[in-house]
Amino acid sequence: MIIVMKHGTTQKQIDQVIENIAHMGYESHLIVGVARTVVGAVGIGDKSRLTALESLEGVEQVLPIMQPYKLASRETKPENTVINVDGLHIGGDEIVLMAGPCSVESEEQILHIAREVKSSGAAILRGGAYKPRTSPYSFQGLEEEGLRLLAKARKETGLKIVTEVISPATVEKVAEYSDILQIGARNMQNYMLLKEVGKSRKPILLKRGMAATIKELLMSAEYIMSEGNYNVILCERGIRTFETETRNTLDISAIPVLKKLSHLPVVIDPSHAAGHWYYVEDLSLAAIACGADGLIIEVHHTPETAASDGPQSLKPEKFSSLVEKIRPLAAAKGKKLCFIEN
Amino acid sequence: MIIVMKHGTTQKQIDQVIENIAHMGYESHLIVGVARTVVGAVGIGDKSRLTALESLEGVEQVLPIMQPYKLASRETKPENTVINVDGLHIGGDEIVLMAGPCSVESEEQILHIAREVKSSGAAILRGGAYKPRTSPYSFQGLEEEGLRLLAKARKETGLKIVTEVISPATVEKVAEYSDILQIGARNMQNYMLLKEVGKSRKPILLKRGMAATIKELLMSAEYIMSEGNYNVILCERGIRTFETETRNTLDISAIPVLKKLSHLPVVIDPSHAAGHWYYVEDLSLAAIACGADGLIIEVHHTPETAASDGPQSLKPEKFSSLVEKIRPLAAAKGKKLCFIEN
Amino acid sequence: MIIVMKHGTTQKQIDQVIENIAHMGYESHLIVGVARTVVGAVGIGDKSRLTALESLEGVEQVLPIMQPYKLASRETKPENTVINVDGLHIGGDEIVLMAGPCSVESEEQILHIAREVKSSGAAILRGGAYKPRTSPYSFQGLEEEGLRLLAKARKETGLKIVTEVISPATVEKVAEYSDILQIGARNMQNYMLLKEVGKSRKPILLKRGMAATIKELLMSAEYIMSEGNYNVILCERGIRTFETETRNTLDISAIPVLKKLSHLPVVIDPSHAAGHWYYVEDLSLAAIACGADGLIIEVHHTPETAASDGPQSLKPEKFSSLVEKIRPLAAAKGKKLCFIEN
Amino acid sequence: MIIVMKHGTTQKQIDQVIENIAHMGYESHLIVGVARTVVGAVGIGDKSRLTALESLEGVEQVLPIMQPYKLASRETKPENTVINVDGLHIGGDEIVLMAGPCSVESEEQILHIAREVKSSGAAILRGGAYKPRTSPYSFQGLEEEGLRLLAKARKETGLKIVTEVISPATVEKVAEYSDILQIGARNMQNYMLLKEVGKSRKPILLKRGMAATIKELLMSAEYIMSEGNYNVILCERGIRTFETETRNTLDISAIPVLKKLSHLPVVIDPSHAAGHWYYVEDLSLAAIACGADGLIIEVHHTPETAASDGPQSLKPEKFSSLVEKIRPLAAAKGKKLCFIEN
Repeated sequence: MIIVMKHGTTQKQIDQVIENIAHMGYESHLIVGVARTVVGAVGIGDKSRLTALESLEGVEQVLPIMQPYKLASRETKPENTVINVDGLHIGGDEIVLMAGPCSVESEEQILHIAREVKSSGAAILRGGAYKPRTSPYSFQGLEEEGLRLLAKARKETGLKIVTEVISPATVEKVAEYSDILQIGARNMQNYMLLKEVGKSRKPILLKRGMAATIKELLMSAEYIMSEGNYNVILCERGIRTFETETRNTLDISAIPVLKKLSHLPVVIDPSHAAGHWYYVEDLSLAAIACGADGLIIEVHHTPETAASDGPQSLKPEKFSSLVEKIRPLAAAKGKKLCFIEN
Repeated sequence: MIIVMKHGTTQKQIDQVIENIAHMGYESHLIVGVARTVVGAVGIGDKSRLTALESLEGVEQVLPIMQPYKLASRETKPENTVINVDGLHIGGDEIVLMAGPCSVESEEQILHIAREVKSSGAAILRGGAYKPRTSPYSFQGLEEEGLRLLAKARKETGLKIVTEVISPATVEKVAEYSDILQIGARNMQNYMLLKEVGKSRKPILLKRGMAATIKELLMSAEYIMSEGNYNVILCERGIRTFETETRNTLDISAIPVLKKLSHLPVVIDPSHAAGHWYYVEDLSLAAIACGADGLIIEVHHTPETAASDGPQSLKPEKFSSLVEKIRPLAAAKGKKLCFIEN
Repeated sequence: MIIVMKHGTTQKQIDQVIENIAHMGYESHLIVGVARTVVGAVGIGDKSRLTALESLEGVEQVLPIMQPYKLASRETKPENTVINVDGLHIGGDEIVLMAGPCSVESEEQILHIAREVKSSGAAILRGGAYKPRTSPYSFQGLEEEGLRLLAKARKETGLKIVTEVISPATVEKVAEYSDILQIGARNMQNYMLLKEVGKSRKPILLKRGMAATIKELLMSAEYIMSEGNYNVILCERGIRTFETETRNTLDISAIPVLKKLSHLPVVIDPSHAAGHWYYVEDLSLAAIACGADGLIIEVHHTPETAASDGPQSLKPEKFSSLVEKIRPLAAAKGKKLCFIEN
Repeated sequence: MIIVMKHGTTQKQIDQVIENIAHMGYESHLIVGVARTVVGAVGIGDKSRLTALESLEGVEQVLPIMQPYKLASRETKPENTVINVDGLHIGGDEIVLMAGPCSVESEEQILHIAREVKSSGAAILRGGAYKPRTSPYSFQGLEEEGLRLLAKARKETGLKIVTEVISPATVEKVAEYSDILQIGARNMQNYMLLKEVGKSRKPILLKRGMAATIKELLMSAEYIMSEGNYNVILCERGIRTFETETRNTLDISAIPVLKKLSHLPVVIDPSHAAGHWYYVEDLSLAAIACGADGLIIEVHHTPETAASDGPQSLKPEKFSSLVEKIRPLAAAKGKKLCFIEN
């Protein structure tokens, strides 16, 4: 930590800062500049409590130098983490496509879409059984029945399953039916839930909150990892900005930034970012070219009657055409699409 | 809902829209303009599923006309809601001050601060027992022991207690020890938690999420109210913007906007908005002049050693001086400070 | 400047940084931490070129310690600046109200509104002659004819005039007819214009750009002051955020932050912040309670036919009622309203 | 325009709205819903003045249905605009790379970099002669001498020149020396400057302001086009958000959105978006995959001593390696790189 003193600070105020730093177990190093004195606090361990020194007289600000995450950091683990999802690998040389409807609506619907996306090249089926909806009056998901339908689709197609978990109490049940547990954007800082999925050993798809910084996303990954579950897949799905032409603003830069700061795989959700199916293809191609390890895309065969997120769902034929455009880009990046054998 | 058709739409595409609207149970009314045709969907009930019509060919966009919240709306209930907290009223002619430390740290600490803020004019004691922290390595609160210390402070001072609840499983326990349950900003869209506190009959202090719109805040209030708990106090605590001089940007306009759209009381948290004690006084005065029903302020007697949020905590003497500045402003607004008799 | 080295940096890389710092004329001071080495650059003068060191290998980031503005800083001039506008003072114990239409539309209109706002308590008449409009097809202002009408209103009422200047070439002409030159939000970083008004000696009302940080606003003030014109009035008028209930988000915290960092007066524009007349009163009261030195408010007697900004204009009777609510708040702050004798 | 009436509006209020609409020359069409009445205003021409109806009693809001830009709209001109820059085409099947230093610093510097970027595959040389800098104390550019050096580099290498113009008075001079006039992000709404470059016939590279919506960018293009200059190249260079890991947030979605709404070419500036050279490569590849017509990239051979923007400049060898990665992606999109023969 760097403690910046105010212009015109007294020696007594500086001594008080040094004393407080010593009291917390760190050493102080001074840099006396022309207009400002700066105190560096040096030592081992978490220095976050040092921010409280901003309350001392004469202190202008406290600047952190180190990142507060450790297990998620590339400094701790320089090589990429490759996550094994029951034989399928995320974070390595293969690009993984996850696709499916926003919500599981019926057996006919989920099986139909599962077959379609598999034949196009998806390896993982997405579909919500428990739906966090902005309105209490909107469709809230089929819940356990939805999980059973997903499991049925897995059995029939061989696709792996990713589905959202929205409360600590249902983690175990959702884990029973699925291969990857998804933490939604609205729950990125639901720490009770993060701790609970941290106790599981299932891979976690952790979505970035719509106002979360990249560092906060890594701190949430750290919550999961600090409980012993290192299988965290980071997912950028658009952040909230002033622009309203798209539902959210896809922060494409999050890919190289996350890759630089962390060893964890990064997946992009172009559907929620765009909010309209028309833009999903171009954003998907951008993500692959930018280095994403995979995509999670909403697909529905009759989006105009979908229970949720209809406007942003691709029809199966559009998804299929998108996959064909991804192949040469993946090749240009030295990667290939992961696929599930029949 | 207003469905705006694209320039050059065919009659067949318009007919398809009308058919889908009829299928969902609504009537269609057309406005044929010079460059655009617009279809209005008229009828009773939730029209949110109509947004899926954006997937139809020829549709440019679907514009909602009605607000999606009902119980929280001033249209439903024109008069202000006044919430009774065990004899103390929030939302009427009295301004309510809530004050106390970010975290309960020890018996000595919470009792000391409780006595101080009461003697200055606070009516409610705040203090966190369960702390949602960005880092898993930061202090996470004293948990149930913290709740017991809060109850002890209530018994000794007569102050009411507001404290945060962070998981559905602990709602009952927290309700046992406190007078108001706080839903923190990070949990504003934790719908499982909202539903659970909706089943309680304790007043709820619902904090706006840092990237939540005013309408989304009202939708979260609607979640609680739709479970039968109408005692919701809305709290603006700063939103996330590009400005970094303050921790968040206090959206002071939220006060008149919420008062116009809803009948629920509105409280301001200047401490989290500012992130630095120095700005808390001016923001507090602004909030009162703007029509807030109360304030929730962080106070700590030794902020430089606080376990959390030290930089934004007022010392007791600053809090006392702030209260004295609030009095004439309250009077100018025709209000007075609520107080607890000894 | 603080140069933070990467984890695992070599001595050679550190030496390279020190050499570059020396080459730019500064001294280096090292702090060798447990996980990071930090280099402080000490010396006199502008250190902004040091940011280029981020290009050197081994450098993680360069953190500025000092503010880049000098003339606008309270460190340079601790006492408040009080600006004399032809006998009327802004920044002292009096609160100054500026009011009038968005655009000057006709002699009848501007004289009518001028008389109204004066009788209610305004001291300065606002009105646009040159209008920066988002659309090239919208009304662009009466230009020089508008300036003449403003001068006529001044002659008749004694009100001072504030009006916007939008190009370097017209600064002289606008200065001829008005008492304060306004730089609009969209021109806050139009440096050619800032330099030109810096050569004038008229007071400048400098509006914050809608995505400008508080520091950038002060840097723009610095541009004007560095040309010799120290009469700069800062104006917060709302920033752009994700919230859409209001046209912009009034950053009320900008008042205490600007007062802390700078000695210049601060005025609030609640009309552009809110974008709707209904919210103007509450925001105005908040601004006064928060310490603003004045307000600039749009007033129009027939807003439903206004050439621009109708929705956010107060009718004269609403303005009058607002002024009466401001008086007791001003008194509570130990201030009074500035007024123009008849 | 759609005028939404409040819940419980009286017939008299509706009649008043209809009368005002008629007075402005439009016809009214009513949709009487269950809870709301909606009035559609139909007719030819700019309806922006109808927004003033929000001031009428009983009106809740006025919703625009049509886009306010015409010349820039794809509805007006469905086929792509291909701009001819002295024989080189932007907006067609070729991808155009613009590269060079932030500022022209010396003859040696600009010639050295020009030769390097040309040999790597750039077709256009960028370089600032007039620099809009946040601080008045930072390097402001070599001005006319800089223009002469750019012209010299063009003569020697055959590269076309793009350089920024920052005031109406210098448009003619800058046009004399360069092939494309750049309007910087801070001047996107400097309407005097837009009108002036609109009178020129040189191609204009119009950068999006950092808080400008996509529609506002198109409105600024409309300003230029309404003066007769249809050669506008749109440039996305990052918008301002809460994320601080990158200097700005590249809004990659702007590419497909602009392509849908407009026929104008779209170029991406990854350097200003990222603010750090390390991220420039991945963002460049994303932009090409997403459908950009070109890139404008900062390149400097000694970025650690650059007069401006050092941290975000690529070294020539990195630029060269980036171009080699662009080639296969361009091929995958059915495009090739535009090049300048020796």
